Amino acid sequence: MTQKSVSLKPHEDRRLRAGHLWFYTNEIDTQRTPLRDIEPGTLCRVEDARGAVLGLATVNPHTLLCGRLLTRRADAQIDADWFTQRIVEARTARDAVYPDPFYRLVYGEADALPGLVVDRYGDYLAVQITTAGMECFKTDILSALQAVFAPRGMWIGNDVPMRELEGLPAYTEAVGEVPDTVEVVEGGVRFAVSLKSGQKTGWFYDQRDNRDRLARYAHGARVLDVCCYAGGWGLRAMAFGASDVAGVDTSAAALEQATANAAMNGYAFEPLQGRALDVMKRLNETQRRFELVIVDPPALVKRKKDHTAGLIHYQRLNRAALDLVAPGGVLVSCSCSFHVTAEELQRAVLRASREAGKRLAILEQGGQGPDHPVHPAIPETRYLKALFCRVGAE
Amino acid sequence: MTQKSVSLKPHEDRRLRAGHLWFYTNEIDTQRTPLRDIEPGTLCRVEDARGAVLGLATVNPHTLLCGRLLTRRADAQIDADWFTQRIVEARTARDAVYPDPFYRLVYGEADALPGLVVDRYGDYLAVQITTAGMECFKTDILSALQAVFAPRGMWIGNDVPMRELEGLPAYTEAVGEVPDTVEVVEGGVRFAVSLKSGQKTGWFYDQRDNRDRLARYAHGARVLDVCCYAGGWGLRAMAFGASDVAGVDTSAAALEQATANAAMNGYAFEPLQGRALDVMKRLNETQRRFELVIVDPPALVKRKKDHTAGLIHYQRLNRAALDLVAPGGVLVSCSCSFHVTAEELQRAVLRASREAGKRLAILEQGGQGPDHPVHPAIPETRYLKALFCRVGAE
Repeated sequence: MTQKSVSLKPHEDRRLRAGHLWFYTNEIDTQRTPLRDIEPGTLCRVEDARGAVLGLATVNPHTLLCGRLLTRRADAQIDADWFTQRIVEARTARDAVYPDPFYRLVYGEADALPGLVVDRYGDYLAVQITTAGMECFKTDILSALQAVFAPRGMWIGNDVPMRELEGLPAYTEAVGEVPDTVEVVEGGVRFAVSLKSGQKTGWFYDQRDNRDRLARYAHGARVLDVCCYAGGWGLRAMAFGASDVAGVDTSAAALEQATANAAMNGYAFEPLQGRALDVMKRLNETQRRFELVIVDPPALVKRKKDHTAGLIHYQRLNRAALDLVAPGGVLVSCSCSFHVTAEELQRAVLRASREAGKRLAILEQGGQGPDHPVHPAIPETRYLKALFCRVGAE
Repeated sequence: MTQKSVSLKPHEDRRLRAGHLWFYTNEIDTQRTPLRDIEPGTLCRVEDARGAVLGLATVNPHTLLCGRLLTRRADAQIDADWFTQRIVEARTARDAVYPDPFYRLVYGEADALPGLVVDRYGDYLAVQITTAGMECFKTDILSALQAVFAPRGMWIGNDVPMRELEGLPAYTEAVGEVPDTVEVVEGGVRFAVSLKSGQKTGWFYDQRDNRDRLARYAHGARVLDVCCYAGGWGLRAMAFGASDVAGVDTSAAALEQATANAAMNGYAFEPLQGRALDVMKRLNETQRRFELVIVDPPALVKRKKDHTAGLIHYQRLNRAALDLVAPGGVLVSCSCSFHVTAEELQRAVLRASREAGKRLAILEQGGQGPDHPVHPAIPETRYLKALFCRVGAE
């Protein structure tokens, strides 16, 4: 089989040479290498305008972001063995850092596997393929995962919106046996999570390092976990010696799960159903106070056009939360919106503190954990922010 | 005694109302409140153009940055009791986070004590007063520290360059008994540090949280500690199970101190004296490799005008370090230059990796620890960056 090639226009090789992995349709010299001849997801050799080879990329001519570099070695054979090697590398990096087999195993570009996300839950894997390029290698990828882990089951959660842009069908699929819930152990706390119907691939591993930090702030604290999902923050706080925990969520199912998770670990949990702002207002009306409040909403700025409204929403949530923090207590304020920078989140929290008439000191700033590494040339791989703030009287 | 006042020009109250603590000579309405009547460091009531009181600030008419707000409560009595209260608050915040009495106790603006820095070394305190305003309160401050800690000794290290700008004399002074070296215990490792002749106030507490992170990366590693000073990074790595450690420094005194610290804890330490770039080049010539390399240079961009040259220096240091990292190893790249952003450091490291032909994944990004809190309205209070990077073959 002859390998297809795509030629970039003059100077359009600079981003790739600077370390990035992406190129765009309008950067391709379609006179020399017409895109119409390329099937979505085809592995192509990438050349600069002078014919120098930059590496191998998957190409989807139907998307503006059409090319993703898999390797800079033009002679690489991209097959099950190649995927096995990358996956072993990713596993080695995680096993060095985490004592237990619960982590994001593959985080796309940052693990040099663009278009692939894999989470590990002990003997089970949750797999997401988001690009046509990776879909073409699905068999090789599943073989590689099988070879490395021999998992009891793999859940293919290929129902994410991004696949539509790539012209891919939405579907889910169980390979082997996948139970309704699997168990995650984090910091000694057990959580039952559903791979099949959960948010993301089931568990928010990205916040684990930040939850670990509660060791410093939870002891003896009354804790409020706002947008609590399955109770990750709140129950970790209990394990660190918090006195009690209340969780806020709009979803009754999430609160049920959090309550069940609490019970499984022998903790009480106070579920508070409703919109975060409404519930916090009610709590303030009854003078409830907490030494530790965590605000970890879903992404409030999903697209650039939501930016202004989203920042106002972050400010309001944090204002409401600050009203509930006892003097000397701690507010943990998070954003997982890629479009909101750490500086912007900090400004929103600062404004909230001025409205609340409280003095803030930012003790720590956390990001996503080391199983969600940042690719240094791809800003999109960094998205999570968590500010740990001491709250004082003015 | 009547209180002096300074009136700000119209709109010049906005920064203070937004949470900042500083104002500048050119923002003062000198028609209404002439600065010539104010002695350097005088405590003044600050008013906006309409006469609304914003709080109490120390004012030094001889500096462009002339005003620093101590409190927004205009009726506050600024005396030894007031300082005691602020210092107790600062202590409570540290004792909640750190098990041992070794930390930065007061970090200026972020602890609402602009112009004051205090480090705690068990029964000893290292005090720095950097503004004329705080110098006026020196007696109250020392009384307050005495009341809260009853320290065996306090070292007043008032010989920092900033004092000259404030028109203050440079001097050092021992209050009580201050030995030549004091002991710091960090993560179970003992370090002897000199308060009287050390860098900064003696010990770089700001990097402690980042050194804690070595728990994940040091086990079994050969470690190179570049710009090692007293051996903080390297010896913490040894305590986390590193196999051996070499330290690079230009200063023979620093290397002696690091070697002595290593011996005190029962570790071997290989001192390598010379310029970091030269020493790393030599190591590379003999094919030395390390699973963990830490690059923690002194601030390479002290002033804005050093920016370009400094970034090139960061890039070169990291390039040389990357050549020495064994496959799958970790590079920890730090900058304590306020004028270098985290993004700029990341770019320098990325460029170095492209030159070295290596693939990087940023696993963690650390800042200064929670005893150096960031004031959310004052960017200058955030300065430390530490990137933890996994280094792979391309």
